[in-house]
Amino acid sequence: MPEPPARHTAVDHGDARGPSARPLAIGVDIGGTKIAAGVVDGLGHVVDLRRADTPGAGPEAIEQAITDAVSGLRARHEVVAVGIGAAGWIGSDRATVLFAPHLSWRDEPLQRALAARIDLPVVVENDANAAAWAEYRFGAGRGCSVLTCITLGTGIGGAVVIDGRLYRGAFGVAGEFGHMSVVPDGRRCACGNRGCWEMYASGRALARDAREIAEVSPVTAATLIGMADGDPRAITGPMVTEAARGGDPAALEVFAEMGRWLGRGLASLAAALDPQMFVLGGGLSDAGDLLLRPAAETFHSSLSGRGHRPAAQVRLAQLGPWAGLVGAADLARAG
Amino acid sequence: MPEPPARHTAVDHGDARGPSARPLAIGVDIGGTKIAAGVVDGLGHVVDLRRADTPGAGPEAIEQAITDAVSGLRARHEVVAVGIGAAGWIGSDRATVLFAPHLSWRDEPLQRALAARIDLPVVVENDANAAAWAEYRFGAGRGCSVLTCITLGTGIGGAVVIDGRLYRGAFGVAGEFGHMSVVPDGRRCACGNRGCWEMYASGRALARDAREIAEVSPVTAATLIGMADGDPRAITGPMVTEAARGGDPAALEVFAEMGRWLGRGLASLAAALDPQMFVLGGGLSDAGDLLLRPAAETFHSSLSGRGHRPAAQVRLAQLGPWAGLVGAADLARAG
Amino acid sequence: MPEPPARHTAVDHGDARGPSARPLAIGVDIGGTKIAAGVVDGLGHVVDLRRADTPGAGPEAIEQAITDAVSGLRARHEVVAVGIGAAGWIGSDRATVLFAPHLSWRDEPLQRALAARIDLPVVVENDANAAAWAEYRFGAGRGCSVLTCITLGTGIGGAVVIDGRLYRGAFGVAGEFGHMSVVPDGRRCACGNRGCWEMYASGRALARDAREIAEVSPVTAATLIGMADGDPRAITGPMVTEAARGGDPAALEVFAEMGRWLGRGLASLAAALDPQMFVLGGGLSDAGDLLLRPAAETFHSSLSGRGHRPAAQVRLAQLGPWAGLVGAADLARAG
Amino acid sequence: MPEPPARHTAVDHGDARGPSARPLAIGVDIGGTKIAAGVVDGLGHVVDLRRADTPGAGPEAIEQAITDAVSGLRARHEVVAVGIGAAGWIGSDRATVLFAPHLSWRDEPLQRALAARIDLPVVVENDANAAAWAEYRFGAGRGCSVLTCITLGTGIGGAVVIDGRLYRGAFGVAGEFGHMSVVPDGRRCACGNRGCWEMYASGRALARDAREIAEVSPVTAATLIGMADGDPRAITGPMVTEAARGGDPAALEVFAEMGRWLGRGLASLAAALDPQMFVLGGGLSDAGDLLLRPAAETFHSSLSGRGHRPAAQVRLAQLGPWAGLVGAADLARAG
Repeated sequence: MPEPPARHTAVDHGDARGPSARPLAIGVDIGGTKIAAGVVDGLGHVVDLRRADTPGAGPEAIEQAITDAVSGLRARHEVVAVGIGAAGWIGSDRATVLFAPHLSWRDEPLQRALAARIDLPVVVENDANAAAWAEYRFGAGRGCSVLTCITLGTGIGGAVVIDGRLYRGAFGVAGEFGHMSVVPDGRRCACGNRGCWEMYASGRALARDAREIAEVSPVTAATLIGMADGDPRAITGPMVTEAARGGDPAALEVFAEMGRWLGRGLASLAAALDPQMFVLGGGLSDAGDLLLRPAAETFHSSLSGRGHRPAAQVRLAQLGPWAGLVGAADLARAG
Repeated sequence: MPEPPARHTAVDHGDARGPSARPLAIGVDIGGTKIAAGVVDGLGHVVDLRRADTPGAGPEAIEQAITDAVSGLRARHEVVAVGIGAAGWIGSDRATVLFAPHLSWRDEPLQRALAARIDLPVVVENDANAAAWAEYRFGAGRGCSVLTCITLGTGIGGAVVIDGRLYRGAFGVAGEFGHMSVVPDGRRCACGNRGCWEMYASGRALARDAREIAEVSPVTAATLIGMADGDPRAITGPMVTEAARGGDPAALEVFAEMGRWLGRGLASLAAALDPQMFVLGGGLSDAGDLLLRPAAETFHSSLSGRGHRPAAQVRLAQLGPWAGLVGAADLARAG
Repeated sequence: MPEPPARHTAVDHGDARGPSARPLAIGVDIGGTKIAAGVVDGLGHVVDLRRADTPGAGPEAIEQAITDAVSGLRARHEVVAVGIGAAGWIGSDRATVLFAPHLSWRDEPLQRALAARIDLPVVVENDANAAAWAEYRFGAGRGCSVLTCITLGTGIGGAVVIDGRLYRGAFGVAGEFGHMSVVPDGRRCACGNRGCWEMYASGRALARDAREIAEVSPVTAATLIGMADGDPRAITGPMVTEAARGGDPAALEVFAEMGRWLGRGLASLAAALDPQMFVLGGGLSDAGDLLLRPAAETFHSSLSGRGHRPAAQVRLAQLGPWAGLVGAADLARAG
Repeated sequence: MPEPPARHTAVDHGDARGPSARPLAIGVDIGGTKIAAGVVDGLGHVVDLRRADTPGAGPEAIEQAITDAVSGLRARHEVVAVGIGAAGWIGSDRATVLFAPHLSWRDEPLQRALAARIDLPVVVENDANAAAWAEYRFGAGRGCSVLTCITLGTGIGGAVVIDGRLYRGAFGVAGEFGHMSVVPDGRRCACGNRGCWEMYASGRALARDAREIAEVSPVTAATLIGMADGDPRAITGPMVTEAARGGDPAALEVFAEMGRWLGRGLASLAAALDPQMFVLGGGLSDAGDLLLRPAAETFHSSLSGRGHRPAAQVRLAQLGPWAGLVGAADLARAG
């Protein structure tokens, strides 16, 4: 007979009480430059918030900064748990950071280290997973049977929520959609491969494409170069977004192309995962329709089997920059 | 609070009794040219088997042929359920065939039609899902936390088993890995897109590549052309496999290239799904090491984050051509 | 000081007398299946014509067939020279066939063999060169300072006429435009490389693309499949042309795509050679505007430096299927 | 009868006297930042040299700077002509600069303007043509029947010498090899197209590839980043050359890849032009074997018809940075 499922790849986060009865929890989002910690209520609202610079001096300093932020918040609020969202690969134990390039962590027992400093339950989660969970619980993807989130920052983060549980894969590192290969022998990626999706659809790709246009066609990219004080290499993603909002043709072309790559990748993911909805989040999602429209158009025209199957919805995330800490807090509260 | 999970995307197949106690069930595999029906015991053994040609005259004739095969087997065995594996998109109700190109079915209520003819529980399942379930229960993928199966036939079928359940997606059509885009503006696919994975790694790709070599370089492909009685366009996939086994350099080159495409796609799937194991099945898996070796090599050298994460195993399927009916029977027995 | 130019790469074909004074010459076009021989006057008119099957039994049989055709024509006309156009690489001596795949010739001293049988001056020329010369002298490219001809048959043949002389390159084999690389790691070509231009823009490409559409999308290609009596693999280039003339969308799509590849290649050639005119000839040019329009559009929109430089004209050839023998005769007459 | 060739696309540069009898001439190389003027003898030696910054204030200032440099040299040498080599498109009259991006010239009548200031014969020539002529007359390509030169600077310049004459095309702008398309939908080029050869094989490509590696894999590119004082975006082509000479693996990889693109393009040019020799010049050719070896290897393994035809030689240029002014002087002397 089939073994009773081991369930070590999915964790149930149900709660028998209603949202109003649920206690407060703290979520912490650890980025390469900033740490944000917030107190989150049962409806996903951030009721208090603290921010600090990420210390550069190694794991212990970061752990102390997290502890300080948590203590400061606990002085003012009664909380029951602490959830940590970190950019990196988290082991399936939700305790160890296997690899976090921006924080120089390798096999770091983060949960244990924090639990020793904070006398509350602590869980550690991948930041894209945490943000996806927030969108599933309180945002654009509420109640979806299968929700796929795409977090568009410097690269692409991803997460899947299936039947009310985060899907983590066999080893805890599922959802690295940004490293699916979309161009054979394409652009070099930091992961050592070439042609990864995030080299074509991400904040990095947006800025790089704009810089490439600026270097080869300064006249075409005059607006962008002007925003960068005359230095094509200083063009950033937010400049491209701002210029596109103002109608600059070069910036709009960059968005249109990125949107096509994004939509094509969504179609591949739909073929594999058949989600009910895609939610596009991360910093780049601030671009709103500039991003959503070309992505959704290409997605719908590229979906394999279109016409013979229901198509997933494509939506923008709703929770903004605090999605990660909201999700981490909610996951911690659920245990 | 989180809703109690709806579970409509995954179905539990547990059984409290041991395998020896489990009763017999019938599995039926409906292909474009043949119908195979078998009686399957609790250990996944096929204890009796019947085959018939697939009638060309529409759904009703096929349903009658299935009924006949089932009746013939029931005359000799006590069975408790019937499982149908069909190439096509099966709705998430496991009852309706949304679309089956080779059988000309569109929104066909197959389960209801069969249940009216057979007074036993009937379930309908996608054939790649059924085969994957068989490998999970009795074959190469036994007990995997996350198992991803790749069925290499004319195209690529796929399936994922997560924590002892088949993953079906939001609308029942997950696992269409063959239609993930791997080459922008690449080869035309029947699905209407270009550059789908199955245009580069499948039985069709194998035969087509061999024919292309034969048409442009008859000298290089002399062995293959000879096997096809002098007509390059008559080269088939099995000829390529046979020639490759005999050491023919042209056939080996075709396998090497197909293996590279296969391995690259597995690396993309590993980035997204993080499975514990890949199992390669389908008719093409008869090629054994000719296929497995280049695929596994490319997979390991292309895996994003290799060295910082565990790598999935890559194995050949073990259940052979009856995997589909074995899996369908076992799913039907579990209900 | 500069050496007086050796001129061994270009041959002057001037003639002090007027066209009406120029005597008749015979041109012979040797193809893989047919030999065509014609008597050509000083205005490029074919005044008499004989055709025969190409013997399959080796160089000597072909030489005899040529001799017979020439004798037959000489019995009725006074001619002063014989020009041979052959598909293959002709040495810069205009006497030796270095390599002719369809005729199984390797380093064949064709000029000497024929001169021994025919007591007239004989010259041997590459067939695309001969056809280009005819267009330069009597057809679409009359009087061009730099004329580039593209002969679209099974593959792509090419030739350049510079300042009234055929350009042959250092070793006699210039103009193999069909083997310029246009797609890295693209389709396999008979020449041993991948991604050659002629794999994307030629009669072979036309038929192959149509067959590929037919195999993956029988519904889309129903008209073409019907023309091929139901066998997608039996679709030919002329069927595609006929279907496109009748407005069949699948055939038109194949032409549109081929036209784009053609135009893109012309833009590359214009960057390198800066011709005054491109003339498109060969059997595929029968498709007329179906071919010319998309090719010219893509050429003009892809020409590097468009707007800052004069663009070459793109025209269809005017001399039809006898261009090769007309050019060969004219070259022979000039010596 | 064939018209006597108009010859407006090629200019004969013969001289009945021997080299020792030939008088001195001045050659001027106008670059975006420097003007170099030299007195050149009949053997191609630079017997005197002056350099000045290129004035930024428009054509007239540049013309004055040229005039000053020429006057300074004429005060010490008896010269008979002045040749100007300029980066840009020169009309077939060898007098007008149609377009020179770095000098902001559009339809500039440079020859007339200079002739009014300098009472000597003046000719204007494209700089890559001038350099190629120097290599043909005094350098690596002496006496070649067909010589193709590739000038590898920021982009790719090109030139062809046929039978002792520069080939200029119908409109004076032949040899723009850098804008032949080698990757469909590839990298954006300043010319407005995508996938131009010079985006993959040039000084710009070298630096850009190194910067891309440095941005995605700082560890791999540690040496290069160190040379650029820690700023990946400040890596330059000469740094890559220096690091490659020192054995740095990242720099060597960049050269190997660039060499492959270079060799593949040479094979395409050989298919079209069938030269006796390729000479690789320009600033990048300082890299010597780092560049020549991978380029020649790929060229020989990619040449269409290899084995059935003679292969062009591939050599480094011999005249170094003064090739342009030497060639311009020699062309001017010949008239």
